[in-house]
Amino acid sequence: MKNFIFQNPTKLVFGKGQIEKLSELIPLDVNLLITYGGGSVTKNGVYDQVKKALKGRSYTEFWGIEPNPRVETLRRAIALGKVKEINYILAVGGGSVLDGTKLIAAGIVSDKDAWEIVLSGVAENQIPFASVMTVPATGSEMNGGAVITREETHEKFSFGGDYPQFSILDPEVTYSLSDHQIACGLADAYTHVLEQYMTTTGQSRIMDRWAEGLLLSIIEIAPKIKESPNDYELMADYMLSATLALNDFIRMGISQDWATHQIGHELTALHGITHGHSLAIVMPGTLRELKVQKHDKLLQYGERIFNITEGTEEVRVNKAIEKTEEFYRSLGLTTRLSEENVGEDTIETIARRFNDRGVAYGENRNVTGDVAREILRKCI
Amino acid sequence: MKNFIFQNPTKLVFGKGQIEKLSELIPLDVNLLITYGGGSVTKNGVYDQVKKALKGRSYTEFWGIEPNPRVETLRRAIALGKVKEINYILAVGGGSVLDGTKLIAAGIVSDKDAWEIVLSGVAENQIPFASVMTVPATGSEMNGGAVITREETHEKFSFGGDYPQFSILDPEVTYSLSDHQIACGLADAYTHVLEQYMTTTGQSRIMDRWAEGLLLSIIEIAPKIKESPNDYELMADYMLSATLALNDFIRMGISQDWATHQIGHELTALHGITHGHSLAIVMPGTLRELKVQKHDKLLQYGERIFNITEGTEEVRVNKAIEKTEEFYRSLGLTTRLSEENVGEDTIETIARRFNDRGVAYGENRNVTGDVAREILRKCI
Repeated sequence: MKNFIFQNPTKLVFGKGQIEKLSELIPLDVNLLITYGGGSVTKNGVYDQVKKALKGRSYTEFWGIEPNPRVETLRRAIALGKVKEINYILAVGGGSVLDGTKLIAAGIVSDKDAWEIVLSGVAENQIPFASVMTVPATGSEMNGGAVITREETHEKFSFGGDYPQFSILDPEVTYSLSDHQIACGLADAYTHVLEQYMTTTGQSRIMDRWAEGLLLSIIEIAPKIKESPNDYELMADYMLSATLALNDFIRMGISQDWATHQIGHELTALHGITHGHSLAIVMPGTLRELKVQKHDKLLQYGERIFNITEGTEEVRVNKAIEKTEEFYRSLGLTTRLSEENVGEDTIETIARRFNDRGVAYGENRNVTGDVAREILRKCI
Repeated sequence: MKNFIFQNPTKLVFGKGQIEKLSELIPLDVNLLITYGGGSVTKNGVYDQVKKALKGRSYTEFWGIEPNPRVETLRRAIALGKVKEINYILAVGGGSVLDGTKLIAAGIVSDKDAWEIVLSGVAENQIPFASVMTVPATGSEMNGGAVITREETHEKFSFGGDYPQFSILDPEVTYSLSDHQIACGLADAYTHVLEQYMTTTGQSRIMDRWAEGLLLSIIEIAPKIKESPNDYELMADYMLSATLALNDFIRMGISQDWATHQIGHELTALHGITHGHSLAIVMPGTLRELKVQKHDKLLQYGERIFNITEGTEEVRVNKAIEKTEEFYRSLGLTTRLSEENVGEDTIETIARRFNDRGVAYGENRNVTGDVAREILRKCI
């Protein structure tokens, strides 16, 4: 195990009816901004619950943070926050609203342009922020990361910073999610786990078991949720799995990968494919291309997750990859670029972008543009 | 899943050589007290590492917090802390030193007697404290609990309060632990998991899987540690498992038991049996006595932990309990009261104490004195 420092101070407030706790969770003496997405919270009752909980308090609202939040939109929120001297933000919505809010929280106390903050990789200073999370997927509700898109150049990058002060997770608010949102959320959570798990074996027995525990749980609930999307217990497991998949709990002292995410971000930036969906397409290709490097972990994964114990090692490795793609398809997602009309030109664009950046991704920092090209070709 | 609020702000600083980070972890402007146990840290090099890390800084030392820390000792530390106007404490030692420190941290800012604070169940106010943890067992390094003994009356009770600001865990400091300390530490960690797991089934798939992941890991490393107690990777897994077994991570939204701990505390208070050892004796008895209530979870546990899939349900339940006792014995611990010369008189004392308190323990609050008597009779 590697040396590590772990600290996750976010207060998780989980369960039915917890939105009413907002009034006691947000300090009384702050100048509050509330951020939202496109308006779905006005339809599913969340907006009304928030308004009721904060009755009698004054706050500013900012609407319209879109999926894959755009720096162009967030700059407007930052300008508003500066004028209004905002010093606390509540994000009400999904991972995109919260990710955007993390950048607003940094931009309000910075002289830099917002995109500069993103490119620097780290927000050095942020005002406090919190969330009412409505879409289980990104894990943003309990981590310090955010992913921002620059529409102008079709670029998508992440940066790190503070953790939310608190996040309210009420599984009941997920009842209004579409099948596609749920499929992408489950794919996102599953892939987050794989990015931290599908690496060198033998680094930590416990981290392996906990990652496997999340994978097994997600596989178990996915088909049940299709049948019963309003089952509280199922949606509670789904909501908690998304949070625990990316809140540092399963990456203590171990190496990580994230090459699939880097490639997926490009597909989203260039073609607008939903984040979780992009991962469902790329992950099987990553595993195919890197199956020698990931051989031992693929064997362990195959056995512990899919009970694959028969056949040669090569057969078992291939079977584990097939089962992974099958899982993503079982969610109702396509898993091939050709199904999304993405072709060679996009593959070349991504390969060139990676090569131009002069950086390589993945556990062993060997996913260059050329390797990304091979991964994407295995996704056709 | 039940509604829950989770927040664990402790910074975990894990790995080789991390003690040198003390100087940056402890604020410069505090009036520092360092607490220790009986002196083992002077032999294993930890004391020298702490002194070196804090070279040039002034602090007060308090030595002699014993295993099962006594309120009588801690009152002296509290008095010293008040005189010296201490406002930050670093505990250097095992769970007992840290548990005692949690009471000192409360006592320094309270007018109440220290035992009153313990009996109240909650420390309302504490000065900040942190730890260099040297004995993986209690999980105190990342939770808000503490267990204190009153020697005068042979009583042992727990209270809750703040979490450590940080805890440094260097697996190398465990190399000097005795076989018995390691056995008790592993038994303690294993039992902590069971207290949060061996309850009603179907409350949370993820919490079940994570608890099982810890149990499987502990079972896997225990015999290997016996052969190689200076293997860094093994001791790292051991150290992390003890922390994660009791830091709230595996009890989100689920019921818990803790009857075994309540009974074990009595055995320690009355006979001085090491905490982890007392649990190894009581847990199998608890499972035998409550096997109807815990039937479904025992089946799940038997299958997922010990691969028990054959025979009638009764056979499998009994087998799971046997395997549990075998595991504790495999650590090198006795698992029967008779082996420790504890007899009927002690059983009666414990039953009377429980009945006198008028409270019942366990998941269903049905472990009265009379049930505790039956549990203990099944441990003879």
